[in-house]
Amino acid sequence: MGKLVIVGTVAFDAIETPFGKTDKILGGAATFIGLSASNFNVDATLVSVVGGDFPQEYLDLLSNKNLDISGIEIVKEGKTFFWSGRYHNDMNTRDTLITELNTLADFKPVVPEDYKDAEVVMLGNLHPLVQSSILDQMKKRPKLTILDTMNFWMDNAWDDLINVIKRIDVITINDEEARQLTGEYSLVVAARKIHEMGPKYVVIKKGEHGALLFHNGEVFYAPALPLEEVFDPTGAGDTFAGGFAGYLAKTNDYSFDNMKNAVILGSTLASFCVEKFGTERMQNLTPREVEKRLLQFKQLTQFEIELT
Amino acid sequence: MGKLVIVGTVAFDAIETPFGKTDKILGGAATFIGLSASNFNVDATLVSVVGGDFPQEYLDLLSNKNLDISGIEIVKEGKTFFWSGRYHNDMNTRDTLITELNTLADFKPVVPEDYKDAEVVMLGNLHPLVQSSILDQMKKRPKLTILDTMNFWMDNAWDDLINVIKRIDVITINDEEARQLTGEYSLVVAARKIHEMGPKYVVIKKGEHGALLFHNGEVFYAPALPLEEVFDPTGAGDTFAGGFAGYLAKTNDYSFDNMKNAVILGSTLASFCVEKFGTERMQNLTPREVEKRLLQFKQLTQFEIELT
Repeated sequence: MGKLVIVGTVAFDAIETPFGKTDKILGGAATFIGLSASNFNVDATLVSVVGGDFPQEYLDLLSNKNLDISGIEIVKEGKTFFWSGRYHNDMNTRDTLITELNTLADFKPVVPEDYKDAEVVMLGNLHPLVQSSILDQMKKRPKLTILDTMNFWMDNAWDDLINVIKRIDVITINDEEARQLTGEYSLVVAARKIHEMGPKYVVIKKGEHGALLFHNGEVFYAPALPLEEVFDPTGAGDTFAGGFAGYLAKTNDYSFDNMKNAVILGSTLASFCVEKFGTERMQNLTPREVEKRLLQFKQLTQFEIELT
Repeated sequence: MGKLVIVGTVAFDAIETPFGKTDKILGGAATFIGLSASNFNVDATLVSVVGGDFPQEYLDLLSNKNLDISGIEIVKEGKTFFWSGRYHNDMNTRDTLITELNTLADFKPVVPEDYKDAEVVMLGNLHPLVQSSILDQMKKRPKLTILDTMNFWMDNAWDDLINVIKRIDVITINDEEARQLTGEYSLVVAARKIHEMGPKYVVIKKGEHGALLFHNGEVFYAPALPLEEVFDPTGAGDTFAGGFAGYLAKTNDYSFDNMKNAVILGSTLASFCVEKFGTERMQNLTPREVEKRLLQFKQLTQFEIELT
């Protein structure tokens, strides 16, 4: 088993979907990544920052999932990062209503000493310089560094983003972001251009249409489970990334074949995340439920053809 | 091996894509279905109509693929159905520029005597009454009837469409059509409603996002092969249907597990179709090329997870 460093936001979200709306609830990239990775009982730390307004109950919730929270800085006089958004009827697009950076504006992440030799580093969506500073703190090169990012940083911190992309092994971005990053419409061509920027592995997330894993001219496809309804997509991408990183850290096997398993497990976990608001579904997920759904993924994709 | 009846258009197409344009070339649903099914050396007949302007060379091309063309009526004084369309830059949407029904307007399909006991009937996109008349001519209930349709008939021949849908086993439609047919956005819910209309099997085609096969609460997913570029999508859906029907007729096994294989082979064949204009790529496809691409589909989707 490898150790896992997760950096990202631990935050308040307020979400509106066609099915209802929430007050401020637990959210943030590192939260979703951590909850997802915790399904593999991996030794993971969350590196983040919150304000004095952040409930102890939420911190306990993370601790109780065996996530190390010593890397979550608590700025007593500050306020926690807050995001609010409203999903459109198709659930594929959303408007951001509120973004309050608060303590995140001056976030200087510190990797706990015990985790500076971690095998896997998962850089959740944050300013690329913050992501870089995590890599700078590692005592040795991790076996695998994974980076998530979004179009905001392409618009506002291009050079910094390109610099951190050079340093990582796996990038996870969505289809539109892959197109923006490369100027290519074809995802196959976009993935090849991203390889040339540095990452040996490129994961392109297509939401309800699944995810593609590219490596060295090969491609693997993990579908999303077809669902009766998507209740709240918030955190699905981070949950995917957390499952991916968590499974790889647990198995300590970074081969392409094992990475295929990791994207399937990422999709499996993401399929739960969208069933309820925020982290609700992920808080009480059992190993039996995960196994059962993994079986559904097998039935969804596995076939036996004999051509004669 | 089962016999296969294919009904649909045999036509002229003129196509414009961002990569170029064609004059009038060979096209039509039955043409694409037949060429695709011919990869399984199945005993298939095409039931269609053309005008005196239809080149003997095109009829020979179909014959040379071991397709029976005795069911293609030639109306000497008439003209062949002609469709012209222009694809947008994303290749997912297109404008119809010209539709000349010509001989198709009075088409009364006649199933050749030798094929009235066929095991598989593939009803290509046509007026639902024409599709029904094929079923009326069969001497015994086929083991499998497959129907393709489109939104045009939902708008213009709703009752006739619902009546033929009641009589078939498998429907293949695209995602937007499934939504229009049922008024449901979720494809899982849409598939269930279509089951209730009659078909035990529902195939929903999602273009570059692959195809879903629904049956009895279960679902199987065949991705589309990620391609560097889609040169011309014309006929991809029919090629998918032809591979699906052809493989089932060849194996004469109509179980759900074998139907999974059939959608994979449908996707495999469709991935060739889009590589060149019209039927060009399908005319010279070799068994070796199909086998090689099937291997790519396996690499694209197959995984081995042991959860411990």
